[in-house]
Amino acid sequence: MSSRFLPRTFYRVVNCSENIKGRGCPIQLSPKSLNRYQFPRAMANVSGRERKLLTMDNLNPCVKSMEYVLSGPLVTRAAAIEKELEQGAKKPFKEVINAVTGDRQAMGQPPITFTRQVLALVSYPELIKYSNFPDDVKERATFLLTGCSGGSTGSYSEASGVEIVRRRVAEFIEERDGFSSNWQDIILCAGASTGIKAVLKLLDCETSGLKTGVMVPIPHYPLFPAVIAEFNNMQQMNYYLDESNGWAISIKELKRALNDTKGTCKPRALVVVNPGNPTGQVLTKNTIREIINFAYEEGLFLIADEVHQQNIYDNNSEFHSFKKVLMEMGLPYSKMELASFMSSSKGYMGECGMRGGYAEVINLQSGVKAMYLKSISANLCSTVLGQIAMDCVVKPPEPGGSSYKLFVREKNSILKMLTENAKIAVNAFNSIEGMSCNAVQGAVYAFPQIYLPSNAIETAKQKQMHPDEYYASQLLENAGISIVPGSGFGQKDGTYHFRTTILLPSAKLKAMLQILRKFHEDFLKKQQ
Amino acid sequence: MSSRFLPRTFYRVVNCSENIKGRGCPIQLSPKSLNRYQFPRAMANVSGRERKLLTMDNLNPCVKSMEYVLSGPLVTRAAAIEKELEQGAKKPFKEVINAVTGDRQAMGQPPITFTRQVLALVSYPELIKYSNFPDDVKERATFLLTGCSGGSTGSYSEASGVEIVRRRVAEFIEERDGFSSNWQDIILCAGASTGIKAVLKLLDCETSGLKTGVMVPIPHYPLFPAVIAEFNNMQQMNYYLDESNGWAISIKELKRALNDTKGTCKPRALVVVNPGNPTGQVLTKNTIREIINFAYEEGLFLIADEVHQQNIYDNNSEFHSFKKVLMEMGLPYSKMELASFMSSSKGYMGECGMRGGYAEVINLQSGVKAMYLKSISANLCSTVLGQIAMDCVVKPPEPGGSSYKLFVREKNSILKMLTENAKIAVNAFNSIEGMSCNAVQGAVYAFPQIYLPSNAIETAKQKQMHPDEYYASQLLENAGISIVPGSGFGQKDGTYHFRTTILLPSAKLKAMLQILRKFHEDFLKKQQ
Repeated sequence: MSSRFLPRTFYRVVNCSENIKGRGCPIQLSPKSLNRYQFPRAMANVSGRERKLLTMDNLNPCVKSMEYVLSGPLVTRAAAIEKELEQGAKKPFKEVINAVTGDRQAMGQPPITFTRQVLALVSYPELIKYSNFPDDVKERATFLLTGCSGGSTGSYSEASGVEIVRRRVAEFIEERDGFSSNWQDIILCAGASTGIKAVLKLLDCETSGLKTGVMVPIPHYPLFPAVIAEFNNMQQMNYYLDESNGWAISIKELKRALNDTKGTCKPRALVVVNPGNPTGQVLTKNTIREIINFAYEEGLFLIADEVHQQNIYDNNSEFHSFKKVLMEMGLPYSKMELASFMSSSKGYMGECGMRGGYAEVINLQSGVKAMYLKSISANLCSTVLGQIAMDCVVKPPEPGGSSYKLFVREKNSILKMLTENAKIAVNAFNSIEGMSCNAVQGAVYAFPQIYLPSNAIETAKQKQMHPDEYYASQLLENAGISIVPGSGFGQKDGTYHFRTTILLPSAKLKAMLQILRKFHEDFLKKQQ
Repeated sequence: MSSRFLPRTFYRVVNCSENIKGRGCPIQLSPKSLNRYQFPRAMANVSGRERKLLTMDNLNPCVKSMEYVLSGPLVTRAAAIEKELEQGAKKPFKEVINAVTGDRQAMGQPPITFTRQVLALVSYPELIKYSNFPDDVKERATFLLTGCSGGSTGSYSEASGVEIVRRRVAEFIEERDGFSSNWQDIILCAGASTGIKAVLKLLDCETSGLKTGVMVPIPHYPLFPAVIAEFNNMQQMNYYLDESNGWAISIKELKRALNDTKGTCKPRALVVVNPGNPTGQVLTKNTIREIINFAYEEGLFLIADEVHQQNIYDNNSEFHSFKKVLMEMGLPYSKMELASFMSSSKGYMGECGMRGGYAEVINLQSGVKAMYLKSISANLCSTVLGQIAMDCVVKPPEPGGSSYKLFVREKNSILKMLTENAKIAVNAFNSIEGMSCNAVQGAVYAFPQIYLPSNAIETAKQKQMHPDEYYASQLLENAGISIVPGSGFGQKDGTYHFRTTILLPSAKLKAMLQILRKFHEDFLKKQQ
């Protein structure tokens, strides 16, 4: 954030023992109480100034081991460099280009007007009466408010979400798949992350002395290992996506992963991310069918991260939900337990800050379902405005409605740009010496492989960094480009990658790719 | 929600195997694949229709044991009765009066205009340019947008929240306490609940073979036992509030609780709720000082739930934050680790659905602080609009601003009503035979004790219900009043209570108390 917007007081040096207003000065203690305060039992051998109750030794070990690359040191460093630039520091670049997150609006892209107008009206319903917003916006806002307790977005919803929004999500799924969806299987959550966590939590259980094994793709969206690490009785089982085959999932590799961990844990769940993050592949219906059959044979609970389902660029690719394929396969597959996740953050809507999302969890045993609902209830509910953002994602303006034309124009222009960006990025990476990149069929990232010369790898080792982490830090420090090293997502040993978002406006993306090409060439030269 | 707003499709009987659009019919399988699909290994001895992977036997045991009364069977039953009434069912009452939650707006009370206007403008910034909202609303919205990535509330904030909002929270605390607050100690969270969970999680650790003991008041806000139960290595230690002394906390009782659990766990944290929920007491500065000294002597991490700090009704009571008293006491106390929590839900603002809240966590060891920030980062961030609601709580309109007069009028009328309601409720309960209630000095609940005759207790036992749960269910079924039985908050054995909110509009509260009086008298008669 630009510092010029901060009142001067923001810069006051903060000192916790300082009494800034001369009020609340230390209490006067009687000799007796002084005595009591000054020689407390637990103080016998320690200095009060130094004593800490919570230390690295008695901190929750799961918190210690958990890693999350998207908030790692490089991201922090990029923010620091931005501030240095604001304060006039001289760098070989004028701005930091942030290509880290799948955050459309952070990249300066405008939101969908309809969603924001609805949010404005449900936040301040006076606007429904006294403003000239489009009719369908007013109707939507009015309808949604009828679903909120006391007719207000300021009241709690049920823990599982506002009923009419859950029903609309179910209708969206029915429209998408051609199979019915029970609105009571829909749980609205604050972005997909909290939904995924709540479902994995149910599986965090030691069975016959073994931890719960959860199969996770490599490379993967870092949320999964982060969440798994936070649970005491859960173990990650890696299966590798086939880079030489467009990051495909092969049953052979799934079986390999299962066999290699035999005896070390009890495999209970299989995580699939489709479209892929960071890899951008879109699974074929046949692959999904094989995965479902594998999960069925091996008795694995299916967890499908499908948050990028509305971002498909490749003409030959189509999104097929696991739910749909499960239903198409009929019994016994159609009775399998499946949790699939969607978000308001990742589609063309790109409303990350609103924290809208849903989980569709099907075929749960009724008792387990009750426990699941109970376990989310202590959080009260997800943000009601986020739920309303989700409503706008699953029920966009309809033909004939006064917002329809604008919505279609906005949606198409975003998807057109992303389709172009996907090609621009992939072509650029494949045209740079020592880089190669699979097609980005969907999602909002490219994940190129980079060739790193042996002395670069050596230098990295000396600095105790992953080689691609070293590469990323050099790219940041020398060219001002902030991307995420592949090591944060997992990759085959001896291969190096990075993830970049393709959400930047096309012109900026092209500029970034130019800078990156130059940097990479210089980097390779330097290493010779 | 009234059913008349639902499209007919909402009523379609949902059947997961039904193919509602004739599309996506089951795939045709070749004999070979049929063979493969029909005799999967794991299927040898089980029927696919019946098989469940996630059962009550292999479900996370912490999820099973966790209880949360505010979403318990009575709350579910109340909602069901509401629907029955909507559908024309005949009952001895015309409506269900919901006195369960501390949710101002669910009770039909209007929000603070300023907050909602700001939310509308940051949701749809066009309104800043082209509308005649008050200047200070426009200025606030403009300022807050400068703190959001890409100038939009639709982008992620840092996991700890939007920096300028965190800085404003720190200024609010400085104003409140007269001691400085470091904005980097402020974590914005989705309501206090998620903040409390994130801090307790740090303490979820087995030390020298013992679980972490967390001291919790009885009666308590049910979130605490619910969260503690979810952690594998945490044990609840109960200390009782003194009902005969206005629900006061005595050091003698804290010591008793500590001694009684010696050897069963490692006491590491002390939870204090001030003002009290469900008990409504406000701690004196002297009591807080004694509690701090106790925590210091016993080496307990202080956790202060202070979400009701802006709801004080008793002229002789004043809110003192633990942070302030800690600082007043000076060294070594001013270096103690403390986490205190605030929310946008519970004050006169009452914006529950927005999910705004903050944690101020002071004096953490730097390494631990880093781990804390890392551990919340995988959730990306709390809702940005909720953070903005929090900004309006800590920085309401200022004198001279165009929204100031209206804000003061709205705020005062709410607090005036709550002050009256607190008296109305307490007086009513104390005037009903077989009921007694301590003064409600703060917060938004009354927690009367009810006398239950022995045969009522007997009947309850036969129905395998807590006696006050039985009383609450009778009150709901026969009088349509929905309250929460005391057993859900914990209480001394042999005593019975219930919690009612005082947030109902005064007229409705009076009506409810009339009905309740009549029900109670009849109930006692019936039992004789």
